[in-house]
Parts: sequence; C-alpha cells; structure tokens
Amino acid sequence: MDTATSPNIVIHKRITSLRLVMAQHRLDAYIVPSADPHLSEYLPERWQSRKWLTGFMGSVGTLIVTPTFAGLWVDSRYWVQAEAELTGTGIVLMKIQSAASNGHIDWLAEHIPVNGCVGVDGMVLGLTAARAIEQALTIKQVQLRSDIDLLQQIWLDRPNLPTNAVYEHVAPYATQSRAEKLAALRKTMQEKGADWHFVSTLDDIAWLFNLRGADVSYNPVFVAHALIGMEQISLFLAEGKVPADLQSKLAAEGIVIRPYVETSTALSALPIDTTLLIDPRRVTLGLRQAVPVGVKVLEAINPSTFSKSRKSDAEASHVRQAMEQDGAALCEFFSWLESTLGRERITEVTIDEQITAARARRPGFVCPSFATIAGFNANGAMPHYRATPASHAVIEGSGLLLIDSGGQYLNGTTDITRVVAIGEPSAEQKRDFTLVLKGTLALSCAQFPLGLKAPMLDAIARAPIWAAGIDYGHGTGHGVGYFLNVHEGPQSISVYGMPEPHTAMEAGMITSIEPGIYRAGKWGVRIENLVLNVPAISGEFGDYLRFETLTLCPIDTRCLDRSILRADEIDWLNHYHAEVRRRLQPLVSGDALAWLLRHTAPVEM
Amino acid sequence: MDTATSPNIVIHKRITSLRLVMAQHRLDAYIVPSADPHLSEYLPERWQSRKWLTGFMGSVGTLIVTPTFAGLWVDSRYWVQAEAELTGTGIVLMKIQSAASNGHIDWLAEHIPVNGCVGVDGMVLGLTAARAIEQALTIKQVQLRSDIDLLQQIWLDRPNLPTNAVYEHVAPYATQSRAEKLAALRKTMQEKGADWHFVSTLDDIAWLFNLRGADVSYNPVFVAHALIGMEQISLFLAEGKVPADLQSKLAAEGIVIRPYVETSTALSALPIDTTLLIDPRRVTLGLRQAVPVGVKVLEAINPSTFSKSRKSDAEASHVRQAMEQDGAALCEFFSWLESTLGRERITEVTIDEQITAARARRPGFVCPSFATIAGFNANGAMPHYRATPASHAVIEGSGLLLIDSGGQYLNGTTDITRVVAIGEPSAEQKRDFTLVLKGTLALSCAQFPLGLKAPMLDAIARAPIWAAGIDYGHGTGHGVGYFLNVHEGPQSISVYGMPEPHTAMEAGMITSIEPGIYRAGKWGVRIENLVLNVPAISGEFGDYLRFETLTLCPIDTRCLDRSILRADEIDWLNHYHAEVRRRLQPLVSGDALAWLLRHTAPVEM
Repeated sequence: MDTATSPNIVIHKRITSLRLVMAQHRLDAYIVPSADPHLSEYLPERWQSRKWLTGFMGSVGTLIVTPTFAGLWVDSRYWVQAEAELTGTGIVLMKIQSAASNGHIDWLAEHIPVNGCVGVDGMVLGLTAARAIEQALTIKQVQLRSDIDLLQQIWLDRPNLPTNAVYEHVAPYATQSRAEKLAALRKTMQEKGADWHFVSTLDDIAWLFNLRGADVSYNPVFVAHALIGMEQISLFLAEGKVPADLQSKLAAEGIVIRPYVETSTALSALPIDTTLLIDPRRVTLGLRQAVPVGVKVLEAINPSTFSKSRKSDAEASHVRQAMEQDGAALCEFFSWLESTLGRERITEVTIDEQITAARARRPGFVCPSFATIAGFNANGAMPHYRATPASHAVIEGSGLLLIDSGGQYLNGTTDITRVVAIGEPSAEQKRDFTLVLKGTLALSCAQFPLGLKAPMLDAIARAPIWAAGIDYGHGTGHGVGYFLNVHEGPQSISVYGMPEPHTAMEAGMITSIEPGIYRAGKWGVRIENLVLNVPAISGEFGDYLRFETLTLCPIDTRCLDRSILRADEIDWLNHYHAEVRRRLQPLVSGDALAWLLRHTAPVEM
Repeated sequence: MDTATSPNIVIHKRITSLRLVMAQHRLDAYIVPSADPHLSEYLPERWQSRKWLTGFMGSVGTLIVTPTFAGLWVDSRYWVQAEAELTGTGIVLMKIQSAASNGHIDWLAEHIPVNGCVGVDGMVLGLTAARAIEQALTIKQVQLRSDIDLLQQIWLDRPNLPTNAVYEHVAPYATQSRAEKLAALRKTMQEKGADWHFVSTLDDIAWLFNLRGADVSYNPVFVAHALIGMEQISLFLAEGKVPADLQSKLAAEGIVIRPYVETSTALSALPIDTTLLIDPRRVTLGLRQAVPVGVKVLEAINPSTFSKSRKSDAEASHVRQAMEQDGAALCEFFSWLESTLGRERITEVTIDEQITAARARRPGFVCPSFATIAGFNANGAMPHYRATPASHAVIEGSGLLLIDSGGQYLNGTTDITRVVAIGEPSAEQKRDFTLVLKGTLALSCAQFPLGLKAPMLDAIARAPIWAAGIDYGHGTGHGVGYFLNVHEGPQSISVYGMPEPHTAMEAGMITSIEPGIYRAGKWGVRIENLVLNVPAISGEFGDYLRFETLTLCPIDTRCLDRSILRADEIDWLNHYHAEVRRRLQPLVSGDALAWLLRHTAPVEM
C-alpha cells in the first residue's frame, strides 16, 4: 500500500521510537534544537536530527516532544513552509516571531510538572542557551539532563562525519601567516591569564589556521575543534581529512591532528589549576561539562571572532578585487538576461544556473556563498525563497525580479541583492523600490562613532521605509567573512536575533546593508550592498567611522520613483554608478560592457 | 584651629567610624549606593548616606569602603565636580562612563578575597542590582550580607522621614478615579495569578491612588509603600502625613494607612501559598527578603508603570493646555529677557528666578519640575550645570544661552530646552545649533512601528550630528509623567542607562527629544521638546505611531545656519512656528505677544 511509505507515517514512527527511549530514561520532554557541536548555521547531515524527526526542511526550528505532545517552534520566515511540511505528522507548529525567541523555554516552564526531567543532547546545545533553559526550569525544580543523545539510539542509519579534504588558504590571499595569528592569540590569552583556549566554531578555526574545507554547503569550513595551549595545539578532525604533506607541515608548526572523537577526552585531561578560555555562545554545554572541576574557566568571546572581523588593509584590497570580478560577472549575467528575455524561456532556476556560471568564469571563484534567491514578483516577497526544479516561476510579463546571490572567492566573500524591472514595473512597484533604495542610501551615507553598537544603526535604514508605514521582518545587516562565512559576527545591524553583547563597530569590519519591502503574494524588493568600516573624522568628539560601499553593480534606475527622491539621494546614486563604471569597465567587453554603460548612465537631477 | 572643622577631616572621621563598625561585623567591604527604599531619583535627606559619607554632592555615585581603600564610582557627568569635592578626603574617584556601568561590581569581584564578606544595606539596594552583585561575588565564594545598615550606627544625627502632607489629585485633572485604577490593577493581578502586589516606587503609588505630596524636590510624590490585596490595601506612611478627612475617605474605599516602619512586618505576614507580584527593578532586596519562603513570588514590571505611561485622551488634552500655559510663561520670560538685557544686570541665577516667576503666574502651576539649568556659553557645555548664588555667569557680550527648565502643573509636567542668541552668535555656534535642530527635527518627524523598542530611535536624532563628527554623552529622550516625575519610564530613547526590557513604544506615551552638542569650555546647545505618541498609519504592515510635538515655544531662528538646512526642515520649522503662534497668541499680550509674533515669523525658503 502506498500509505505505508508515506512520509507522515515515517515521521509518526520516528516520534514514537523517540518516546520509547524517552520513557526508558524517564524523561518528561526531549528537546531537539537545530544545531551541531559547532553551533554552525549550516549543519552536516549527521546533525540534521530535527529535520529527520519532523520532515521540516527549514534551517531553524526547535522540536520538543513529550509523551503526549510534539511541537516545533518555528520563526516567521518559515511558517508557510512548516505548515505544509508538518501536515499529517501530528507535530504542532508553534509560531514564534524570531529565531531568538525563547517561546519553547516558556512553554517548557509552563507545561513540565514540578520535579520533572527534561532531556537534551548537551553536545549540540550552546552554553548560553543551556543556561537560559536551566534558569527557567530551576524555578519549577525541573531537572535538565544533557548527557544523553537519544537520536543515537533511534537513528540507525545516521550519517557519519563528513570526510572532505582540508586545504590551505595560502598567500597572497591569506595575508597573515598561521604563526602570526597564533602568536597574537597566545598574547591575548596571556593578557587574560588563560593557559588554554578551546574553539568549536568552524569559521574561527578556519581563519586561525589558514585552512579551508568543504564539509557544509556554501561556507568553506571543515568540521573540527581546536585546543590551543601555550606550547601545543590539538586540532580534532575526522580521520583522513588532512593530506599527509599538510599534516607534516602543521606538525612542524606544533599543531597535532587528533581524532575528532577525542575532543571530550582531551578537555577532561586538562591539568587542574590551569585556566581555560571559552566563549559561552560558541561552545556547547556538553563540551563545557567535559572540563574538570579544578580547571578555572574564563568566559569571553573567542579572540579570533574579533580578529577575523577586522579585515586588514591587505584583505580589504583583495576584497575590492573580488568585488570587481563579482560585479563583472553580474554585468555578464544581467546583459545575458536582458538580451535573452522574451527570446528564450527563462525561469528562476535558469537564473541560478546562469549567475553561478558567470561567477565561475571569474578568477578565484570557489563556489556560491549561499543558495541563490531568484524570486519573480510574488516569489520575491518571500525573503528566504528558493526556486527548485519542481517549483519555480517563469520570468515573463512584467514586474520585479529579485536576485540575492553571492560568491566565495579565494580573495573574499560576496553577497548582493538587486531587483530589476521585467517589462514595465507598476507605479506601486517603483515606489517600493525607491523607498528601499532610500533606506540603503541613508545607512550607506551614515557616519557614526567608532565602537557604536551596530544594532543602533538599524533605524537609519528603516526610517524612510517606516515613514511610508512599511517595515521588514529581518535584520538590516550581517557581518561577512573573508573567504569564509557569509553570515559572520560579531557585529550585526539588527534589532532581531540573539542579543550578542560584542557588536561594537570597528574599522575593517564588513557588513551588509539590505533593507526590503515584501508584499505577500505580489512582489518583493531588497537592495543589498556590502560595506567596509573605514576611519572618518577624528577630533574632540572622538573617532568616527563611515562606510565604503564595496559591492559594485548597477542599481536599476528604470525602477525609480523620482518624485520621492531628494537631490542628495540622486547625487549619491550618480556617484555610485560612476564608480561602478570606472571599476568594472576594464573587466567586461561586448554586450556586458554595453549593458554596464547603459545602466550606469547618470540620472538627471 | 581651622582645620579641625575642615570638611575633609569630617569625611575622614566618618569613613573611619564606618570602618570601625565594618570590623565589628567582619566585613571586607561595605557598599553605599545612592538610593533609598523606593529606588527614587531624588532622595530624601535621610537616605543621602553616600553624600554624608563622602561630601560628594552629585546625585549618583556608589561608594565602596574596605579596611584600606575607599572609592567612589562616578559617571562622566560628575567627574569634574567629584574631583573637586573629593579632594583631601582620601576617597579615590573611580571614573565610569555611565551610571549603568558595573565597574564597582567588577572591582569587588577582583579585589575581595575568596571567602570574604561584603556588606550593604539591602533596604536601599534594588533586587536586580543585588542579583548582579551576588552573581559576580558567588564566583569567588564571597558572601553578600545585606541585613545590616551600618549608617544607622554611625550617622547619629540622621534626618527622620519627611513629614510633608499628602493631598489628593482631583478631577478634572485626575481623569480616572482611584477605584477605576485599582479595579484595573486587580484585574491584571488576577490575569497573572497574583493575590498580592507590593509597590515601592513613589510615582507608581502617587498615580495609583490619585495622591500627591512634597517629600522630595521637584517630583510631587510622598514616601510610602503600598501592599494591594484583592480585598484590602495598606499604604505605609510616616505618621501625620495624611489629613484626617482624607484618611477617612481612603478608609471608606478600603485603603488602610499604616505606619511606614511596619512595611517589612506586613510583608513577612503574607499568607503562605498565596502569590505576590513584585517588580524586581522597583523593589529592594531588603523588602524582598521580608517575604516568607512559602509565598510564591511573581516577577514582572509594576502594572501601574505601564498604565501611567500611556496617557489617556483626557490626560493628553490637559497636557496640551498645560503646554500652552507653559509656552505663554516662556514668551513672557523671553520677552522680559530680550528687553532687559543690556539695561539691567542679568545672571544665570536671575534667569532661574524669572522663569519660575513667569510659570508661577500661570494657572495650575505647582513647582518647577527640576532645577533650572541656565548656562551661558561655557556653562551651557555642562549638561547638568546648575548656577548657584556663589558661582554663576553674568549674561553679557555675545554667545549662546541654554535654558533647560520645566514646571509641574496640576494638568501636566513640562520640560523644555531652548538656546537663544545673546548678541551675535558666531558661525560655529550657528552651525552647532542647526545640527542639533536637525537632530530634533529628524526624530520629531519619524513614524515607526507600534511596539518598537524606544532606544532604536536614538540613532535617528544622532545621525545628522554624527555626520559632522559630533556626539553627545546622554540619552536622546526620557519618559515624562502626568503631574508626576519628569523622568519616568518605562520607555527611554537612549543607548545609555540600565537596559530596561520594557521599553516598547505605545500610544499615549510622552517622551522628550533632546539631542545636544557640548563644546567643553566654549558653549552648549540642546533643543528639547516633549512629544506624544499618537496613532498613525495602520495597514498590511501593522500599526504605526508618530510624534505629536507638545512643547510650544519658538526656536531661535537667529541661530540658524541656513546653508545646512534642507527645504523640508525649514518647512517643518515654519509649520511648528505657525502652530506655536496660533496656540499661544490668545494667552499673551503686550510685549510678550509682540515677542511671540516676532519669533514665530516664517523663515524664507
């Protein structure tokens, strides 16, 4: 019978087997977060437990199962998708506004009986998150058991650790040697009085060791932990990932490769009376608990998280070159789009293929930096839309086409959103486009004190959009790595999200500016550039930063509503387009050059 | 000998006697915060322990005394004053950036030996603040003893509780009866499952019971605690404060007046297995500890703190009338100033007298809402400057005169800052004035989502000032009460200060908008209006608020630098001045009317 293999039956079976092992451990509830031991954004298949248990394919969601209830806490980005994917599973969709909501914790505190017991795999639960849960449960004398991975008992064909090879990020793109980075880290450790530093975050490890990998989609990182002492360093990796010659080279530098599964053992062997530095937002409860009681634990943000966010001048120069190549690729793509539209059938999927192909022809390109979002009209209104071969729109008629895409280059990571006119956009579409542009410009022009908390800048981009009674449900900007993660902290121009206390703006940081307007079922607009924090005025009121716009690609002036643009805004746009033309012109030819020249023509005041 | 009575010897003696009693209690340190049992901004003399112990007269500062060290943690507003006042006391000035800094806690955690003991009078330490200290000390196994008020042992002539009379705030100014307010509160208590609610904050109590007093400067409040049950209510007050007829009236409404000193006793007599609602930011550790263990304690913001922040339409109408009277008083004052300058000697002190006298002639005036700040040129550069008979400037020559003042009226509380030209201001002064005005305007025009966290708006006022590489070291706006405190939460447009989680913008809230520029030793500019949150657009993106500017008083257009004003900004200013003229014209005559007409003339585009 067909229903025997229906996915809903599968989910029912999985939840039932989870409840069986929960009962063996006398648990009143089990929490399954969307997380791995590295608290990564993209999870290797091995840690997609929540996806395996629920069938919900979105990237973020927290599952809580009790003997009589199963609920999945999902933020507003994924409500539509979750509703569809949870149908028939018996799992209740629990709607929360943002991924940082503690709705599931409040629910636990309310529903678990006094003196009850809640289970979770501490190896995939961040220390800070764990404390929030513990605090809420303590009030009701509910215990949190974090030493049991029930998935291991019921997920029989659970995937293994990824085995992709690790490689070096070499000069000139790596502008600082491993030895220099490690010396600087050890100096910071010394200043803080730490003998050891343990790092789980994959981008920190990749940056610190000038190594890269391909264990997850889009982020060039590899699954590892690192334990850094004053004389020795252990890198914990699945076997076979490091080629022999690289392993010898690392060994010569005092970096020993050890099996991934020995991470806990190594932490539990730390000498008593030494001091260990960890980042409670970037280390899991499980690994924290492996540290012996006699070791003094110092909590602070990973020093490398700070260091890598402040790009050196040499790195900034490389990024400018990557941006030129990326902009040139986009000229080729958009010129192809413009000349092909109406002659050949183009879908959202074709766009993804063509834009990636255009980038792939550029020097230094490695892979896309995230899944291309190409959304035509109504699809553009879903900020996290992804067209699939099974479900996508054809680009035809008229309206707005939103394309959010980016590339990983050896010399930088790019992320850009442009919206282009298909046929003749309506007056309402032009107004939305122009309001969003006003937001992007307002923040791009801002000057602000060095050290300002980045979320404070959010309202500057939103103010012109709020003025029209419109808002968008995502942050205005995220940090971006250097040939690393496209979402990388610590800075974040956002009122949303887990409030990270370390978000002060420093010179060298790269951040996106990406306000938007989303009209459900109609169209979406988002205009995104990456910007670099550069020193501006210094004087009696301290030091100031301004933004250098790094992203180089025309903004579609056919979509402008001139009546709501001020003279200084048109001036900014014309200056930007002159710069785009000057920088990209040498890198394109033929149709692409003609397209560039046409689309960077100044707008008349 | 003169030195025997020198204040420094006095301070030495006081600190020495504190150390003696500290030794008796085996304390390694004693903390003296600037606080009273009500966590008020203005402290009755009885609780000015920190002032008595240090000689520092500023309003905020935390003293820590150990056997070998005494330090006073003071924020940047008071560094200059504290430096002068602490000279020769042996007390070390510990500089912190803002009053919300936890510098003293970090210092304790670093300097108190393991297993040590720190003392504090828990009756004047907020619960939230106490938890922060306890958390920091626990790591080092340091104990916090909060059951001892050492001041009581050494401050022999300590003042008693204030004895000023309590009076009723009556209709029409009180727009909602006591019975209605208490019924609404009890409904909220019921919804939260609370049988009891204990309130210590004086503005909450004054609002809830439609009572006012005069126990502290400027805020029309009286020293009391309140315990509200479902059937009975106790108001804890020093004896003799409530006139007999009012006492009978309250008794008939189920409100029993009890001696202030019985507060702890009443809390400790709460029946086991009932639920008590308290606000951990608005109740002290000492009173929290009086609650028996078997009483369930529910922590949430005081419902009245929310309720009173959302002014009713009737209250808003009253406030508009108070603003008209206040504006009219200011026309009379400024017209006097303009006609008298150069003919008579005018000092900063005269200004304080004249401005208060002008307000006092207006109906409903009760008292100033804070100490007038009148600062000419360099004195205007100190945001918390106060001219005294002993030290003040004469208004002569040319420059900028900053006047920040306000009144308590039966129908509202005002707070306004204007800067006026004396002689011919310099080009630099005009530029600063205009930059600040651009900040005030930018935020005054803003429209924003209902429920937005108020601190997010801060950058909108700062952006035009940051653009010139300038910033100011205080918040952009504070909440204002209704014939109550001039600084009243929960909303606050500020990146500074203790992050209060309950700061979402709601309709009816009144907030100040007051950016500034302060050139140390030269001049200061601040332009402050009070604004009311009023509903604006509602649509597919939710509900929006905008600001109605309540304050009515001309902005000195002689100080404008037209070259940096945009057309839309001049337009706003002309509309504002037209409204000021329309509303104030009926309330002034003679010279004041002529002054009003002259100073509300439109600026040409």
